[in-house]
Amino acid sequence: MQRLKYEDIEAIAIGAAIMGTGGGGNPYIGMLRCQQELKRGRTVDIITLDELDDDAVVVAVGGVGAPVVSSEKLRQGEECLRAVRAIEDVTGCKVDALVPFEMGGSNSIVPLIVGAQAGLPVIDADGMGRAFPEMDMCTFSIYGESTTPVAFADDKGNVVVVKQAITEKTIERLGRAAVVAMGGASGYAIAPMTGAFIKKNSLPATMTRAKVLGYAVMEANRANSDPIAAVCACEDAKRYFTGKVTDLERRIEGGFAKGHLTIEGFDQYQGQVVRIDIQNEFLVLTRDGNVEITVPDLIVVLDQYTGHAITTEELRFGQRCVVLGMPADDLLKTRRALEVIGPKAFGYTTLEFNPMGSAVEPQSKSIVG
Amino acid sequence: MQRLKYEDIEAIAIGAAIMGTGGGGNPYIGMLRCQQELKRGRTVDIITLDELDDDAVVVAVGGVGAPVVSSEKLRQGEECLRAVRAIEDVTGCKVDALVPFEMGGSNSIVPLIVGAQAGLPVIDADGMGRAFPEMDMCTFSIYGESTTPVAFADDKGNVVVVKQAITEKTIERLGRAAVVAMGGASGYAIAPMTGAFIKKNSLPATMTRAKVLGYAVMEANRANSDPIAAVCACEDAKRYFTGKVTDLERRIEGGFAKGHLTIEGFDQYQGQVVRIDIQNEFLVLTRDGNVEITVPDLIVVLDQYTGHAITTEELRFGQRCVVLGMPADDLLKTRRALEVIGPKAFGYTTLEFNPMGSAVEPQSKSIVG
Repeated sequence: MQRLKYEDIEAIAIGAAIMGTGGGGNPYIGMLRCQQELKRGRTVDIITLDELDDDAVVVAVGGVGAPVVSSEKLRQGEECLRAVRAIEDVTGCKVDALVPFEMGGSNSIVPLIVGAQAGLPVIDADGMGRAFPEMDMCTFSIYGESTTPVAFADDKGNVVVVKQAITEKTIERLGRAAVVAMGGASGYAIAPMTGAFIKKNSLPATMTRAKVLGYAVMEANRANSDPIAAVCACEDAKRYFTGKVTDLERRIEGGFAKGHLTIEGFDQYQGQVVRIDIQNEFLVLTRDGNVEITVPDLIVVLDQYTGHAITTEELRFGQRCVVLGMPADDLLKTRRALEVIGPKAFGYTTLEFNPMGSAVEPQSKSIVG
Repeated sequence: MQRLKYEDIEAIAIGAAIMGTGGGGNPYIGMLRCQQELKRGRTVDIITLDELDDDAVVVAVGGVGAPVVSSEKLRQGEECLRAVRAIEDVTGCKVDALVPFEMGGSNSIVPLIVGAQAGLPVIDADGMGRAFPEMDMCTFSIYGESTTPVAFADDKGNVVVVKQAITEKTIERLGRAAVVAMGGASGYAIAPMTGAFIKKNSLPATMTRAKVLGYAVMEANRANSDPIAAVCACEDAKRYFTGKVTDLERRIEGGFAKGHLTIEGFDQYQGQVVRIDIQNEFLVLTRDGNVEITVPDLIVVLDQYTGHAITTEELRFGQRCVVLGMPADDLLKTRRALEVIGPKAFGYTTLEFNPMGSAVEPQSKSIVG
C-alpha cells in the first residue's frame, strides 16, 4: 500500500491525460478536486493487484459524458460517491476497494477522489489502459458476465440505476440516455467485482505508469529538456508526426463529442497532412489518406513545447503539436476485445486493426466508412 | 373482494377507454392480453378501498410511452411484472396489492394482467380518474413525498430504476429518457405506498365506474339503442359537439404523441368548428376560437354510432364523432394538483382552468400559448 503525496496528484493527472488519447475528461479540474480533498486532511491509498484479496468487493468508478460538457458543467464533487453508495444499496454489498475504469485525464483522478471521500483504497490498475468513449469498452465488460447494476449519479442528487440489461451495449445505450437527460455528464459505478476477477482482467500498474510519466514531463519542463523525449523514454511510444492544427470539426452527437482534426506537418513532416478522427477520444490517424494508427492503439497528441496532452475539447486552430503512437495492452487486442473496441466497433466497416509495433513501421491502409 | 368474470374485461376496456380521454394505450390489445391470462386459468381479484389494510404494501403499475408506439410495438407481456419485481428487489418490500396509475384504455387493464400473473389483488381506484401523458401527473406523485424508486422494464428484459430524484418532474424526465431508449414504450412501477396513503389519495371505485360504463355501451349496442345516451346516463357527462374529423396533425416528439384535431359540426352544430389539442391525451377543446374544456376536465371523443372511445392514435380523417365533456375528480382540481395538471403545466401560459359543471354552461375564453 502506498499513500499518495500531494504532488503525486499532479503527476498522475499529467500522465493519465497523455494515456487518455485526448479523452477521459479535463485533467486540470480533476486534479484540483483531488488536491482539495487532500487539503481537507483526507488521504488516498493505492494498492497493487498483489495486495488485493481474491474475495475483495471491488467497484469501478468514473465520470461519463462528453469531455467538453464536463469542462463547462462543473461537477458537484460527490457524484461518484453517490453512485457507489447506490450500488451498495441495490446489491447489499459493502465495497472494499475502488478501481478506475480508464486511465485518462479526470477519470484516473475520480477514483482517487472517491477513495479519499469514502476511505477506500484504489487499485493500481484499470479497465482500458487509456480512455474510450463508451462504457462497455472496458475489460470489466469485455471479459465479465454482466456489469449490471450500473448506477449513474448527477450533480443535483438524482440517481438512475440500469438494473438489468440483455447486453453490455444496452447498458451503454440506456445509461447514455440517462446521462444525456442529466445534462451530459454524470458519475457512475458498476456492480461489484471480486478481487480475483480484477487480478485477471485489468491492466496492471497503470496508475503507477501515469505517475511516472507525469513526473518525467514535469522534470523535463523544470530542466528545460525535451518533454517529448521524456515521454518516449518512459513508454513504448513512437513519434509519428509534428505539425500545426489547421482544421477542426467537433459537434455533440448523442452525448458524444464527435468530429475530426487536421494537422499540417513541420520539419521532416513538411508537406504531409494528418487527419485524426474523434469520438471523445482520438480514434484513427490517417496520413495523406493512409491509415496508420487505429483504436485500440493509442493516438497521443502532445503540446510540442510542454509535452502535456492536448485533450479533444482543448484542441484549437494553430496549436503546434507532436503526435505519438503507443501500442495498446494485449488484453485489448484479443478477438473478443476487438469486437468491442476495434475500428469496426466505431463504424469503420472495412478497416481492420493493424497493430503498431515499436519496431515495425505501421502499414498503410485506405480508409473506408 | 370481487373476482372478475371473463366478460368484465371487455367492459372495463371499453369503459376505461372512454375515461381515458384518448389516451392510456390501445384498449383492444390490453383486453386480449388480459383475456389470455384468464384463459390460462389465472384469476383477477378486485378489492375496494374499504377492504384494503392501512399497512398494506401497494405498488402502482402501468405502461408508459406514446400510445401509437404501443399499438405497433406489441408488448412482450411481462414488462410490468418485471418492474414490480425490480421494486421489490430494490426496496426489500413484498407487495400486497396493485393499483392502476390511470383509468385509460390499456393502462386500466395492465394492473389486472400483473395481478393475474403475480396472484395479487388490484384495488378499485386509481391515481388519475382518466389518463394523463406524464408520469408525475398522478395523485400518488402530487400528494406523495416522492415516488422513487421507479422501475422501467422493456419487452426484452432490460430494467432501469430511477433510484433518487430531486423532484417528481425529474423522475418523469429521467424515466422518459429511459423509455425513449427502450423504443418508446415500457412497463413501470413506483415505490411502495401504504394502504392508508392510497385510501386518502386515490380516486375511488374508478375500476367499477369503467366496468359499468363499458357494460352500458355494450348493452346499448346489443339493444340497438343510443350508446351515447347510455354513456351520459352513467357518468356526469355533457354532450358538446357532433361532427366529422376534417384535419389531423400528429407527431412523435420527445416520446409523446403531440398534435391537434379539427372537427366540423353536424346537425345543430352545423357551421361550427372544434379544435382539440393532443399530448397523448386530449388537452384543450376550442370551439370557433373559444376555449370550452381544458385539462384536467375530461374531453371524450366517441364514435357516433358505437359509442366506443376513439383514442388519439386511432383518429382518422372522416370519422364521425361525438365529443363529451366530463368533470375531473375534485382531487385533480386543488391548487396543488392544478400546478401539475392544469393548462399551464402543458404550456398554455395564459389559460386558467375553468371547471366545467354539469349544470352550468362552460364559459368561453380565448386561447393563447
